Amino acid sequence: MSDGKIVIGTKRYSSWSMRGWLPVKLAGLDVTEVLIPLAGGATSALKGQTPAGLVPYLEHNGARIWESLAIIEYCAEFDATLWPKKRRARAMARAVAAEMHAGFRALRQAMPMNLGRGDYAGLGRTEFALEDIARIEAIWAEAKSEYGGDGPYLFGERFTGADIMFAPVVARFLTYQPELSEGSLDYCRAVRAHPLVDAWYQEAAEEPAEWLLEKYENLR
Amino acid sequence: MSDGKIVIGTKRYSSWSMRGWLPVKLAGLDVTEVLIPLAGGATSALKGQTPAGLVPYLEHNGARIWESLAIIEYCAEFDATLWPKKRRARAMARAVAAEMHAGFRALRQAMPMNLGRGDYAGLGRTEFALEDIARIEAIWAEAKSEYGGDGPYLFGERFTGADIMFAPVVARFLTYQPELSEGSLDYCRAVRAHPLVDAWYQEAAEEPAEWLLEKYENLR
Repeated sequence: MSDGKIVIGTKRYSSWSMRGWLPVKLAGLDVTEVLIPLAGGATSALKGQTPAGLVPYLEHNGARIWESLAIIEYCAEFDATLWPKKRRARAMARAVAAEMHAGFRALRQAMPMNLGRGDYAGLGRTEFALEDIARIEAIWAEAKSEYGGDGPYLFGERFTGADIMFAPVVARFLTYQPELSEGSLDYCRAVRAHPLVDAWYQEAAEEPAEWLLEKYENLR
Repeated sequence: MSDGKIVIGTKRYSSWSMRGWLPVKLAGLDVTEVLIPLAGGATSALKGQTPAGLVPYLEHNGARIWESLAIIEYCAEFDATLWPKKRRARAMARAVAAEMHAGFRALRQAMPMNLGRGDYAGLGRTEFALEDIARIEAIWAEAKSEYGGDGPYLFGERFTGADIMFAPVVARFLTYQPELSEGSLDYCRAVRAHPLVDAWYQEAAEEPAEWLLEKYENLR
């Protein structure tokens, strides 16, 4: 018997699921993974497993949590290293995580996450997506220069809630390859190499072909 | 000398500012209020006072925090009553706060906050705004039935981060008067009567006529 379940969508596509799965794994919660292949919107399969028909969704010892940011906060109560130790750094990490949570819609629309395509480089460079990317690079540079020290992540040695929120953005950058600074590219490589991010990619690569969705596979 | 500043926009209109100002007041942070009248977008006045040109923005003892949700979390580190005491309730409070933070765009567009108009009742009832309102009423009803007890707020006696996030929604409901359940109306009255919400309304009423914006004042 586990302590509950984490409900997620197709790993190849579901950026929000990745943001809910990573903190659960980092905090070591003992929950069963329930993967419901994405099929667009709140399907009956999803509604049967979650209260709002949305992924990610966590149930743990009677607590029911949706919204990736709330799942990160929940997990951080069990593993405090999910946020930076110093108050000022923690404050900035939460600010950028919240900014990601509610923003960057142009980027998300122009460059939907697709972990399985090697031929999307150069696509999606709309004016507003490039503005989003410029803001993201500014956030990364500021966090790393102020708080990153010699560590590979935004706030140093530990992979925090801010890195979790940006992990699917890194995945997009690796797929669509917009022009990025050297510092941003280093950060992307570090996130991609994190063992849990790598595990997510590997599990995505093993998903069956029936789960492919035309709307994400016909960009080129 | 205060410990910093909270930068906000016009109280009559700025729903996000209200979400940043309330937790600062509830936690009793000693910061100076800097009000920059809204004029649409990131004006030079705003850019001079904040890093991202957005309100609300908090500086406190060297920490710099934007995004209302991150400001709530920051303030909750000084005043733990900003979140419910019990883990399950706290998890749900954070989930609904995050859902508000990133969602309900149709409602926000159709019923922009305007604390000074008594003649907007009945406006803004677009199909998608009504869907948002139905979801909000479901959240309120679920929180109050599971965790509200006899208290007036979503999670009981204390005005938490979830109530903060919904306070400007209550303000919209009082102005536009969509049809609501009795339970929702009770909750709206309780939020409106909170001393800090009332203080915000009073200060909004004292703002000068030059700060009025045509786009929010010509709905009727």
